[in-house]
Amino acid sequence: MIIGGKREARRAYGLDELALAPGTVNIDPDDIQIGLQIGDLNFQIPFLASAMDGAVDVRVACELSRLGALGVMNGEGLQTRYEDANAAIAEIIAEPVETVVPLIQKMYREPVKPELIARRVEEIKAGGGKAVLSFTPVGSQNACVAIEAGADAIVIATTVTTLEFRSSKHTSIDLPKFCREAGVPVIVGNAVTYEGVKQLMEAGAACVLIGVGPGAACTTRRVLGLGVPQATAVTDSAQARDDYFEKSGRYVPIIADGGLRTGGDVCKAIACGADGVMMGQPIASSFEAPGKGHHWGMATSSANLPRGTRVKVGQKASLEQILFGPATTDNGTLNFVGALKLGMGSCGAATMREMQSVEIMIAPTLPTEGKRDQFAQKVGQGA
Amino acid sequence: MIIGGKREARRAYGLDELALAPGTVNIDPDDIQIGLQIGDLNFQIPFLASAMDGAVDVRVACELSRLGALGVMNGEGLQTRYEDANAAIAEIIAEPVETVVPLIQKMYREPVKPELIARRVEEIKAGGGKAVLSFTPVGSQNACVAIEAGADAIVIATTVTTLEFRSSKHTSIDLPKFCREAGVPVIVGNAVTYEGVKQLMEAGAACVLIGVGPGAACTTRRVLGLGVPQATAVTDSAQARDDYFEKSGRYVPIIADGGLRTGGDVCKAIACGADGVMMGQPIASSFEAPGKGHHWGMATSSANLPRGTRVKVGQKASLEQILFGPATTDNGTLNFVGALKLGMGSCGAATMREMQSVEIMIAPTLPTEGKRDQFAQKVGQGA
Amino acid sequence: MIIGGKREARRAYGLDELALAPGTVNIDPDDIQIGLQIGDLNFQIPFLASAMDGAVDVRVACELSRLGALGVMNGEGLQTRYEDANAAIAEIIAEPVETVVPLIQKMYREPVKPELIARRVEEIKAGGGKAVLSFTPVGSQNACVAIEAGADAIVIATTVTTLEFRSSKHTSIDLPKFCREAGVPVIVGNAVTYEGVKQLMEAGAACVLIGVGPGAACTTRRVLGLGVPQATAVTDSAQARDDYFEKSGRYVPIIADGGLRTGGDVCKAIACGADGVMMGQPIASSFEAPGKGHHWGMATSSANLPRGTRVKVGQKASLEQILFGPATTDNGTLNFVGALKLGMGSCGAATMREMQSVEIMIAPTLPTEGKRDQFAQKVGQGA
Amino acid sequence: MIIGGKREARRAYGLDELALAPGTVNIDPDDIQIGLQIGDLNFQIPFLASAMDGAVDVRVACELSRLGALGVMNGEGLQTRYEDANAAIAEIIAEPVETVVPLIQKMYREPVKPELIARRVEEIKAGGGKAVLSFTPVGSQNACVAIEAGADAIVIATTVTTLEFRSSKHTSIDLPKFCREAGVPVIVGNAVTYEGVKQLMEAGAACVLIGVGPGAACTTRRVLGLGVPQATAVTDSAQARDDYFEKSGRYVPIIADGGLRTGGDVCKAIACGADGVMMGQPIASSFEAPGKGHHWGMATSSANLPRGTRVKVGQKASLEQILFGPATTDNGTLNFVGALKLGMGSCGAATMREMQSVEIMIAPTLPTEGKRDQFAQKVGQGA
Repeated sequence: MIIGGKREARRAYGLDELALAPGTVNIDPDDIQIGLQIGDLNFQIPFLASAMDGAVDVRVACELSRLGALGVMNGEGLQTRYEDANAAIAEIIAEPVETVVPLIQKMYREPVKPELIARRVEEIKAGGGKAVLSFTPVGSQNACVAIEAGADAIVIATTVTTLEFRSSKHTSIDLPKFCREAGVPVIVGNAVTYEGVKQLMEAGAACVLIGVGPGAACTTRRVLGLGVPQATAVTDSAQARDDYFEKSGRYVPIIADGGLRTGGDVCKAIACGADGVMMGQPIASSFEAPGKGHHWGMATSSANLPRGTRVKVGQKASLEQILFGPATTDNGTLNFVGALKLGMGSCGAATMREMQSVEIMIAPTLPTEGKRDQFAQKVGQGA
Repeated sequence: MIIGGKREARRAYGLDELALAPGTVNIDPDDIQIGLQIGDLNFQIPFLASAMDGAVDVRVACELSRLGALGVMNGEGLQTRYEDANAAIAEIIAEPVETVVPLIQKMYREPVKPELIARRVEEIKAGGGKAVLSFTPVGSQNACVAIEAGADAIVIATTVTTLEFRSSKHTSIDLPKFCREAGVPVIVGNAVTYEGVKQLMEAGAACVLIGVGPGAACTTRRVLGLGVPQATAVTDSAQARDDYFEKSGRYVPIIADGGLRTGGDVCKAIACGADGVMMGQPIASSFEAPGKGHHWGMATSSANLPRGTRVKVGQKASLEQILFGPATTDNGTLNFVGALKLGMGSCGAATMREMQSVEIMIAPTLPTEGKRDQFAQKVGQGA
Repeated sequence: MIIGGKREARRAYGLDELALAPGTVNIDPDDIQIGLQIGDLNFQIPFLASAMDGAVDVRVACELSRLGALGVMNGEGLQTRYEDANAAIAEIIAEPVETVVPLIQKMYREPVKPELIARRVEEIKAGGGKAVLSFTPVGSQNACVAIEAGADAIVIATTVTTLEFRSSKHTSIDLPKFCREAGVPVIVGNAVTYEGVKQLMEAGAACVLIGVGPGAACTTRRVLGLGVPQATAVTDSAQARDDYFEKSGRYVPIIADGGLRTGGDVCKAIACGADGVMMGQPIASSFEAPGKGHHWGMATSSANLPRGTRVKVGQKASLEQILFGPATTDNGTLNFVGALKLGMGSCGAATMREMQSVEIMIAPTLPTEGKRDQFAQKVGQGA
Repeated sequence: MIIGGKREARRAYGLDELALAPGTVNIDPDDIQIGLQIGDLNFQIPFLASAMDGAVDVRVACELSRLGALGVMNGEGLQTRYEDANAAIAEIIAEPVETVVPLIQKMYREPVKPELIARRVEEIKAGGGKAVLSFTPVGSQNACVAIEAGADAIVIATTVTTLEFRSSKHTSIDLPKFCREAGVPVIVGNAVTYEGVKQLMEAGAACVLIGVGPGAACTTRRVLGLGVPQATAVTDSAQARDDYFEKSGRYVPIIADGGLRTGGDVCKAIACGADGVMMGQPIASSFEAPGKGHHWGMATSSANLPRGTRVKVGQKASLEQILFGPATTDNGTLNFVGALKLGMGSCGAATMREMQSVEIMIAPTLPTEGKRDQFAQKVGQGA
């Protein structure tokens, strides 16, 4: 479409604008396969927990592994800056909201300690979990520490990660070299465009995280103007993955990361072409999460330009109940696995690959969760 | 439209997005015919009540028959699980909202009793009503009990019902065989796509219910991502009906089911091609409804993944006043028959068939009922 | 656009969706002409007051004439049913909101009295005003009473008025005959379609009122599904007027009626092709209005299917200040004439005819007035 | 698109509807150039402060110059009407909101005094600032006073400024002559259309301000119906600038003026083709602003048709922190320069000119700031 003059702009879609059409055959949810493979690692269910300090610590990483999912730990967060990370988290939780961003900025100025990186890896391994830690491109030396300590995979991620970084002063990671030499799968993100995803795959990424400012309320879009609505980001990226697969023979899964809150969001992300989903808030709202019902993003601690703040999400259920149910409410935030399988079955998709091509419709947007909660409360009070 | 990559999605429309244009001739409402025929059953007005336990019991079924409409009873609900269904309903109504979903889940674990099915059929017949009960595809044996007891028609329905169900463990109903042997009209639902509706008609359905996650706030869309906005679902299905009629010579009516709240919704559903409408909330808000102003959906009781909760709708008027007026408010929830006839007359449509082809416009969406109510209250307080 | 199947629907636009682009020349508002001619009647400003009992009585009709505008009195309202109409109005204003619709229904069951029709005409004439009364098509005999008593023009109007009315029992007005024999200009409404407007003009209407369910919150659309957003209704009707003018040589002005609240709405209605505007709420909010800050629509009194209720709009300013300013607030509800002239000047339009072809843009919708007021209050409390 | 009849309307876009896509290369923000040149004046950062009396006085103009930006003083405002402008401002701030518009109308009836114009210019120069004052076209004699007193540039601006003004009584500025003889750069505004911008450039403008009723809540659109959403206004104007540059060899920068609140808005305005931005509210919310956290627009004082009222924006931070950070909140209203550089870097743009052609997407609209604040508060109270 033309915005004005000769300036073209493409209409991009968010997951909220989509709805899935039922198939002409129904499939028994018990017969549906939803596994995910990243490099040589296999997961029974395609759910990853975001590398947020309020969501993932050693205990959560181990429990998610037990459940067939994957919890990514922030390799440059409180767990690797503070020996007693729980005390640091407690301080953040206790701070009044008006001053919490400056406090978070301060807490994250404490240096990352290589010995703590190694220790966290060992603790997760000792607990029977898959040890996967996340680092920024400039923290790749720390990533090597994690690998040496036995990490099963590494995540290299920033708000936007591209193959090339131009600077007169700093040099960034040599991604192809790093992927070649890591010895473990390297998950890279975030990216959102066809070209960007393709370059990361060609650089050797074992998996790409998809999502930049995907949610309607995402502060990246407010602060920087930057953001691609998630449905378009995932479909564009899935095209890049399929084209790269056809050319190279290597299938690099893509993970929808950001703005996913409900079972419906998960079903739609897969239908758009994702191989899995990464979630922060649902994990942060588990009984086991270190944030005790609070979470904050990786960019909240930015010294000059914080994006995101501490959000209270409450403690709703155990990780097992969140993933496998039973659901005791109807708001789509419990039993994600059950919802994905039932949604796939209703669409007539027996495999993740089939789900990636079911019929999608563009539909009038649902009211936001906030509004719906207000409505539910009103009804609740009345009832 | 392209969402991203090469992924296409069709724009689907909800009833809220439509408005009807007046015709160039006005017709006297008193001269307008709005009957509905399902198999050999004739109804004076094209209104069906949903098979919800809060909406339809023996008394409501009889009264709706007297008024020329049809009340469908849930054949696998409280009426056929509990001898004293009113006591069960009272328990649900009394429960605090936080724990009502688990209670509903528990109450519906009580087995369905064939003798109660037969008894309810007999009670409705004794009261002079048409006895029509609803069953899920796996409950077709219970449906046979109802038929033997004298049911006038049977509804076979789930969230999404397709001709084929693939499972390694369970077998589902053989729909063509069931329709052939039932001896009474078999109403089947819910479906929303051209292909899905056509297959159900070819399988012998006497009527098809249209609607999967149709409302903007429907939890099926939130929990599973699944849903087709009702205007598109009905127009697609109407096309399937017309094509099947042309091929087979058999006219199978379609009933818009779900998300209809006002006279305007009803007029627009017919204009989209429906032969009738099925409504839950308006019936549940009658003085006669067993839920005493509360209702909950058929999927609320799902053990693992409940959709919908108990909603308080209040007790507004008698069934007769709801259907035939007079209206004493201007919100479109009273005098549905009067609204349909006046709407048809203003569009210049003398018959249901003519109403199915009046001019439709896509128009800026109305504010939601909730907002409107707030506004009305504000005005009310001021006035 | 296709909604589904093969069913087409046209996208219709509301005034809220439009914005006017500035012209490349600016014109001094003092040099701009905005007169309106209906038959042989000339008005200095193109503003009509709706025939609502809360808005127009003898005093308002006279004052509007003095100001160059036109107030239409409801010929079948309280003024012609009750000798002491003010007492009847006072009763309606005093009623609690929950029971006001039934009360209004009751008050309008009192018969219309020919002698009161004649008396109101005489009172308006005695006060120096133009006497224009509004009747429904079935009340055309009463219209003759008004004409005989000296009415300057007659309005024949219902929610939707078409040339043809089909009924097995009732006969409606013979509009061509009535227009031919009336001896005064006959204003007819409401219509919204090209065909409908053209037929009314061919029948001899001196002016056509445009608007059926035009506002986003209009209950006609909620109750009946009926309504054409006003921008599309006016542009379609303007086309009919222009085509009829080209064919017949007779220019029949069209008046945008309904949903106009602000100066911006007026400017946009004219830009869409209207020759004038009819407003209810702005007039009802004048100090002089009989409703003392309340109003209700002509269809509120419908015995079976009321549309609209009593709305409190407050008493804001004198009619003169509402029309000619000065404005003391910035919400666009004062100084309509100044706003129209300044808007026209900014668009480079020196005449109404030029304003009907300035550039229109489709723009993101403004927040509703309600929201804006909340915002203003919030700011106000803070400031 | 067709609105109705044969009436065409173009879809225009607001900045809220846009999102920027990340580039395939990342650029170090420290290497990014964001200078702005207007005539012979150079600014290190492309930020201008609006000529609003609540935002710019001598002190703010000097401080903005020190920071590399430009503060425009209202040459026909309180500063040039009152010797003690602070006292006048204090009076406006103290007034209750209900009566503040009439008070503002009264305060601006005090005549503009040439000697005060000269004095303000001299005070700014003495403080080391660039002295740029804004006048309406009818106030061009006062503009000459400012030039003689040493002003560095002049702004000639009204809501809509066109080359031609038709009036039977008044004559307006001869813009080509004024630009030719001014001896300093003449910034002209506001304009929004290709043709309008081109004419102002051909008349000799050194810079054109872009924006008429750009914001969704702008009262110009409510009161007059007039307004072009800013994304379309800027892209159309950028096309005019580029075409004029190709033809004439003179590059006339355009400044997006109005409705910009966040870093994201700024990034998007530049991506649409602007060379700089003019902001009122962010400057008015600085500790240094004369309005002490309040501001009101230039059209608020209109005697007959005020647009805009006094708005309370609070006092948030110093001008330096607002422009250069560090940000301590995540709402995009602090560190505009940092946000612009990081946004450009993420889009792969090293220069303003490159930023003007990065990929733009049309995306679902963000919730309004008001809603977001409510949400943040809710979270805040809970946390």
